[in-house]
Amino acid sequence: MHPAATRPQRAQRRVGDAAARRETLTRERWIEAATEVLVDHGIDDVRVDRLASELSVTRGSFYWHFRDRDELLRAVLQSWRERATEQITARLQGAHRDPRAQLRDVLSLPFRGRAAARAARIELALRAWARHDAMAREAVAEADASRIDYIGGLFELLGCTRAQARQRAFTLYGHVVAESQLGAIGSSSERSSRRKFVEQLLLGRPAR
Amino acid sequence: MHPAATRPQRAQRRVGDAAARRETLTRERWIEAATEVLVDHGIDDVRVDRLASELSVTRGSFYWHFRDRDELLRAVLQSWRERATEQITARLQGAHRDPRAQLRDVLSLPFRGRAAARAARIELALRAWARHDAMAREAVAEADASRIDYIGGLFELLGCTRAQARQRAFTLYGHVVAESQLGAIGSSSERSSRRKFVEQLLLGRPAR
Repeated sequence: MHPAATRPQRAQRRVGDAAARRETLTRERWIEAATEVLVDHGIDDVRVDRLASELSVTRGSFYWHFRDRDELLRAVLQSWRERATEQITARLQGAHRDPRAQLRDVLSLPFRGRAAARAARIELALRAWARHDAMAREAVAEADASRIDYIGGLFELLGCTRAQARQRAFTLYGHVVAESQLGAIGSSSERSSRRKFVEQLLLGRPAR
Repeated sequence: MHPAATRPQRAQRRVGDAAARRETLTRERWIEAATEVLVDHGIDDVRVDRLASELSVTRGSFYWHFRDRDELLRAVLQSWRERATEQITARLQGAHRDPRAQLRDVLSLPFRGRAAARAARIELALRAWARHDAMAREAVAEADASRIDYIGGLFELLGCTRAQARQRAFTLYGHVVAESQLGAIGSSSERSSRRKFVEQLLLGRPAR
C-alpha cells in the first residue's frame, strides 16, 4: 500500500478487497470447473450450460463473471500460466540460489506425486487444444518459451554459451515434458534411474 | 497364396478380395473421419451422427461396418497402432542393419515435414484421450512400450547392458515425443542443432 494513503482510503480498499475476493473465488470455481471438463472431455464440451449444471447454478450467474465463453477460455489459460509457470519459476528461484540445484529441481517436477499428475493432465489437454486453436497455442508457446528461457539462463550461469545453454535447456525441458506424459512406463526404480541418467548427462560434466 | 489352390478357388478369392477391399476402403473412411474429429475436437465429438453427416452418408450405413461406436473407437486405435508403430519399426529395421543408423532415423522422425506434423497431432489427441479412458490408455501404453523395447534393443546391440539400454531408450524416445510436441520452439537451425546435440549425447560416445 502506498504510504501516503489516508485511513478512510484504507478502509474503503479493505471493503473493496473483500468484495473482490468473493468475486474472485466464484470466478475461480468457474475456471476450475472449465479446466476439469477440458481435461476429462475436451474443449468442445466446455460450454456454459454444462458448467452451470455441474456447479448447480443458473446459466445467468455465469455472465456476472464473464462476458462470454471466450472470456472464460482466456481465463482458463491465464490461470494455468500463473500457476504452472510463474509460480514454479518464482518458487525455484527463491528456494535455491545454486543454478545446478535449481536444474535438479526442474528435473524432479514430474515426480511430485498427485500435484504433478494433475499438472500433467491439464497440460496435455491444453496442448491437444492448442493444436487447433490459436489462442491456446499462443498461451502454451509462451509458457514453453518462458520455461526454456529460465532453464537456459541457469545453464548460462553454469558457463554454457547461449547456444549451448539453449540446446541443453530444450533437452532438459523436453525430458520433463516426456516424463510427465510417459511416467507410467517402467518401475519406480527405472524412473529414478533414468532421472539420474539425464541429470548426469546434462549436469554431470562441466560445460565447456 | 497356398500353392495347392485350384484356379476356381483363386478366382473366387479374387472376387472376395475385391469385395473385402471395397469394404475396407469404406471402413477406412469412417476410421479416418473419426480420427480427424478426435484430433480437431476431442473424443466426445466422435459420434456416429456427426461422422455420418461429415461423410454425407446415412447413419445406418455405419452399422454395416461397425457394431457400435465402441467398435469404431477400437478400430481408430488399432489403425493408429498399425501405422504409427508397426510400419515404422518394420521400415527402419528393413532400411538399415546398422543399429546406430536406425537410432539416428528414429531421432529424425519429428523432422519429416507434414507427415510428422500429422502424426504428432494424432498422437497428442490420443494421449489426451488416454488420460481418461482405459482402452485408449492401454493402446498408447502398448505402443510406447513396443517402441521403447525396439529402441532399447538397438542400444543393446551397441553393447549397452539391458538397464543402460532402457535408460537411453527412454531418454531418446522422450526426446522424440517432446520434439514432436514442442517442435515449433526455436528456428530450424536451433532445431537441427539440438537434434545433433542429443544424437551426440546418446550415440556419440561408445557405451560401456
